[in-house]
Amino acid sequence: MQSQQPRDIDIAHAANLIKISDFASKFGIQEDEIDLYGKYCAKVNLGILNRLKDAPDGRYVVVTGITPTPLGEGKTTMTMGLTQALGAHLDQRVFACIRQPSQGPTFGIKGGAAGGGYAQAVPMEAINLHLTGDIHAVTAANNLLAAAIDARILHEKETPSDQVLFDRLCPIKKGKRKFSAVMLRRLAKLGITKADPAELTPDEMRRFVRLDVDPASISWSRVVDTNDRFLRKITIGQGPQEHGLERQTQFDIAVASEVMAVLALTTSLQDMRDRMGRIVWGQNRSGEPLTADDLGVGGAMTVLMREAINPNLLQSLERTPVFVHAGPFNIAHGSSVVADRIALAGRQDGYVLTEAGFGADIGFEKFADIKCRASGCALGRRHRGHRPNVVAGQPLNEAYTRENLDLLRAGLCNLQRHVENIRKSGLPSPRLPRPLVPIWHDLRTHMFGVPVVVGINQFETDSPAELELLATQARTFGAFDAVVTNHHSQGGAGAVPLARALMAACTSRPDPHDFRLLYPSEGMPIKEKIETIAREIYRAGSVTFEPQAEAKLAHYMQMGFDMRCVCMAKTQYSFSANPAAKGAPSGFVLPIRDVRPYAGAGFLTCLVGDMMMIPGLPSRPAFFDIDIDPVTGQIVGLN
Amino acid sequence: MQSQQPRDIDIAHAANLIKISDFASKFGIQEDEIDLYGKYCAKVNLGILNRLKDAPDGRYVVVTGITPTPLGEGKTTMTMGLTQALGAHLDQRVFACIRQPSQGPTFGIKGGAAGGGYAQAVPMEAINLHLTGDIHAVTAANNLLAAAIDARILHEKETPSDQVLFDRLCPIKKGKRKFSAVMLRRLAKLGITKADPAELTPDEMRRFVRLDVDPASISWSRVVDTNDRFLRKITIGQGPQEHGLERQTQFDIAVASEVMAVLALTTSLQDMRDRMGRIVWGQNRSGEPLTADDLGVGGAMTVLMREAINPNLLQSLERTPVFVHAGPFNIAHGSSVVADRIALAGRQDGYVLTEAGFGADIGFEKFADIKCRASGCALGRRHRGHRPNVVAGQPLNEAYTRENLDLLRAGLCNLQRHVENIRKSGLPSPRLPRPLVPIWHDLRTHMFGVPVVVGINQFETDSPAELELLATQARTFGAFDAVVTNHHSQGGAGAVPLARALMAACTSRPDPHDFRLLYPSEGMPIKEKIETIAREIYRAGSVTFEPQAEAKLAHYMQMGFDMRCVCMAKTQYSFSANPAAKGAPSGFVLPIRDVRPYAGAGFLTCLVGDMMMIPGLPSRPAFFDIDIDPVTGQIVGLN
Repeated sequence: MQSQQPRDIDIAHAANLIKISDFASKFGIQEDEIDLYGKYCAKVNLGILNRLKDAPDGRYVVVTGITPTPLGEGKTTMTMGLTQALGAHLDQRVFACIRQPSQGPTFGIKGGAAGGGYAQAVPMEAINLHLTGDIHAVTAANNLLAAAIDARILHEKETPSDQVLFDRLCPIKKGKRKFSAVMLRRLAKLGITKADPAELTPDEMRRFVRLDVDPASISWSRVVDTNDRFLRKITIGQGPQEHGLERQTQFDIAVASEVMAVLALTTSLQDMRDRMGRIVWGQNRSGEPLTADDLGVGGAMTVLMREAINPNLLQSLERTPVFVHAGPFNIAHGSSVVADRIALAGRQDGYVLTEAGFGADIGFEKFADIKCRASGCALGRRHRGHRPNVVAGQPLNEAYTRENLDLLRAGLCNLQRHVENIRKSGLPSPRLPRPLVPIWHDLRTHMFGVPVVVGINQFETDSPAELELLATQARTFGAFDAVVTNHHSQGGAGAVPLARALMAACTSRPDPHDFRLLYPSEGMPIKEKIETIAREIYRAGSVTFEPQAEAKLAHYMQMGFDMRCVCMAKTQYSFSANPAAKGAPSGFVLPIRDVRPYAGAGFLTCLVGDMMMIPGLPSRPAFFDIDIDPVTGQIVGLN
Repeated sequence: MQSQQPRDIDIAHAANLIKISDFASKFGIQEDEIDLYGKYCAKVNLGILNRLKDAPDGRYVVVTGITPTPLGEGKTTMTMGLTQALGAHLDQRVFACIRQPSQGPTFGIKGGAAGGGYAQAVPMEAINLHLTGDIHAVTAANNLLAAAIDARILHEKETPSDQVLFDRLCPIKKGKRKFSAVMLRRLAKLGITKADPAELTPDEMRRFVRLDVDPASISWSRVVDTNDRFLRKITIGQGPQEHGLERQTQFDIAVASEVMAVLALTTSLQDMRDRMGRIVWGQNRSGEPLTADDLGVGGAMTVLMREAINPNLLQSLERTPVFVHAGPFNIAHGSSVVADRIALAGRQDGYVLTEAGFGADIGFEKFADIKCRASGCALGRRHRGHRPNVVAGQPLNEAYTRENLDLLRAGLCNLQRHVENIRKSGLPSPRLPRPLVPIWHDLRTHMFGVPVVVGINQFETDSPAELELLATQARTFGAFDAVVTNHHSQGGAGAVPLARALMAACTSRPDPHDFRLLYPSEGMPIKEKIETIAREIYRAGSVTFEPQAEAKLAHYMQMGFDMRCVCMAKTQYSFSANPAAKGAPSGFVLPIRDVRPYAGAGFLTCLVGDMMMIPGLPSRPAFFDIDIDPVTGQIVGLN
């Protein structure tokens, strides 16, 4: 990384991009399989998976990182550098899959997130701003459900007569009442098989029209894609027309919505529709779960996500293909399953690089235990950057710009821990009754052991001795290889040595049928799953559950909720719940503050420690530098 | 309108659409002037206005309506029927400009809003859902400003030292401090001409870093594009990290954002940047206005709107061109100025139909006094539907499905009032010092008098006697002509008689240089402007100002705010502020509840009576019927 290098946005603007329609056809995507969004971005329709269902898959490589700083750890840049090296310099078939960044950090601390320097996905403005509107669709679907919940509570309260409520929900039109399709779903759940509204008994009518929501049980937040900390805790419904039904709630950042998790994990439109309908947002006064379909809104939510499900095709600076799709909060499980599947399909002997950050404790664990469990895809390789402990918005501390081997040595424990964890993820676990059975049996996957290749981002102030120490130690920690890389300043050419190491690791692959997950889907109590992650990955000494988390867990178990896997919403700045605990802390207490039943996504979310579900803006947000040149229409100041 | 007719969405799906790239070229739009968004929608870049700047303009026709029902009054359908008649049956050059509907009503009461029956803009799903994301961009820009306001208040409070705050806003990088471009705007406003941060005196530093916001003065709301009534009045900032800075505020529907008003009225990217920076969102403790550029966020807001400024090109069912662009709340001033300008440019001897609803008291008055004042374009013609007094969500009352001439006669007063108002708008006003001077002197416009052509939507239950009574009376009220039309069931062919009447009206045009606005930009106190609209258009007996409105008005006048025009946020269901007062009430009191300084949009907004800035969901929202066919991917149930 050179100090004299042009800014990311200027490098991106200088790139000579190919029109995406021409670009797509170069990679075997047919004209009728894409929809253009401007000149340099296209959505690829899921129909392509049908066409390629018998084509052999490529090698599946996951790019993760060590514990990051608030500025990121260069994971997307690493992905782009490596894909450029493989595709543009080593003549390999490649595809990179990265997540779409939230607008919150773009205008807050972090600036852009489409790679950096000469290793970028472009147009970087599109990626960092609206792209094709997928996050906005998530927001719309999430907030439609939220509005429907409170409106329904109000309407039930305002309408004491079951018959009147029934008349409103099923009005007589041309002399006839009719249930809408989604109402039949609710009736089926209630065990009522009548299709003619006239046949409902008064009791059935009451059960049908009364959701009887317990307001205290509502776990559904509204969302915005803005770093708006003042929405962390709010009271709604204070207008006179809401008749005193005020309650305390919160907004989360849009990417924390369960709808985003569904987008990342879904495999088809039908699967998405089913997941939306299954979303549990609260309970009735008998403690029974209430779903989006109970409210009648699961179909409309899916309609809002109909285009969002298709991955967005863009290009790297060196004209290799990139999918930018989905991006769950806390980068919970990386980019989308459908993007990875399309990228893999027919990429025989090629490489698909998928991103799963932040640190491997956050990204890799979820990638394996949530995403691979859902997709049936299993992985092969990983790469990691370095550069810990940079404080956001501040110039580099002097200690980081001069050679300091002791300081470097002191930080190596973090790298060591992550490498060990990933190799551990691949170890057979006595608790697992049997290996994961992939949905796609013909996937060319690289399971078990998961060799680790460490990529070392070279900064201009790094001394040869520092780089050597890092590489040697990484190998000692169990990495297959550790290679210095210069893609930020040199593009793909700078990452060729790293790419060669990756290819070597791939040819040395172990038996692909031995990949194991950390914990099994069935047969292990949910608290034990949480404790397994805490103990094996974070190295916590113990886990505590605050009373509300404890009570909810007990209730969810009683209700038989689907809790096959766990998504830990934990700070990415430490293995522990304390962002200030750098390095490789162990033996600490991991506090579970609250839990949320992501029944549509198919996991339980744990809020760990003080983890905020919506970030704040810093004193000097990135937006101060972001402006438009009104003559050229070019954006300035995005980095 | 026939009862056996297929649903709107089925008619739309059966249409054989032309790819938008081929379509655009048919209408003289060049390949490099568009960006595709899917196969059937494209954004047209504003650069086209440069290429066509010397081309003669088309005739400018505005389509408005009588006082509507909650189901709408068929204005968009009228626009589409007429444009199909002119373009596909009468061989005229046409362009229709309609507003983008908010998602709120789409999933709430109203359902789709892209026309109806055989008179639609398509794809109707795109229009009713995300289209190209313009409303989402408005939401993002609006909410970024909102988040920046509260975060800034917090940071100023948490940082007592001016120097520390200065160090954060202008950090030393590589030994040097630098002001960002937007900071220079704030300094200029403060009368500080120093470009080197090191030269600021402590007093200048204090004035620069301290916005010193008066929280009670904040007039900026957050927005969502969802009918979420529980956000009408909320308390934010209740989290422990917000240090007790809680305050009461509200969400508005996204289309009520001043950012949407700016989108509708702006003429170029530079103009948009300037308007964004000028937005006033509150005051400091000395009562001085605070702008988006004071917060450093005007550039970033413009960046978020960079694509949204380009109008969206779609097609009608009969393959005539349609712009769908912008859509201010209360349909304050119709679709966008840039869409109308592009449509007019080079459309010599042709017709541009632009929509301005709801009733003419809401839409037409603002179209003339706000939009034409801003654009310099002046108008020629209008059309109106009928069908008052249908209650939303209920089957038609028996009274409306049988011939009832007395009932019809009783409602004619509403039509009469609207016709009179529009003709009045064209009457020379003694208060106007001189006629509006169009910015574009070569516009072929039809000013003064504004002949009214009344279009009568025929319903299957209308009797010949009813239609005859309506047409005869409309002519008596001063309409140039009144013609029955059947475009809903017959498409453009059904609107040919109406289109011929429109063409006749256009050839009988009066002197185009006599078009007058209702009130002048300068030389009339703001309260007198409000009273003029209330008296002349609504026929109020008097106007009252609640204390907060009174106080703010006095303050804005003192501060010299730009209040050239007034935007009345009033119920569309009555001439008065009472939605229940049907027909043509007069002599009532018009209460101004509050005012907002839309300094970026260039007008003062008056909140009239109980007008809600965010609608609610009904007991049975439209979303119950909306779902997706997972096999075909088609949307069902949008109407």
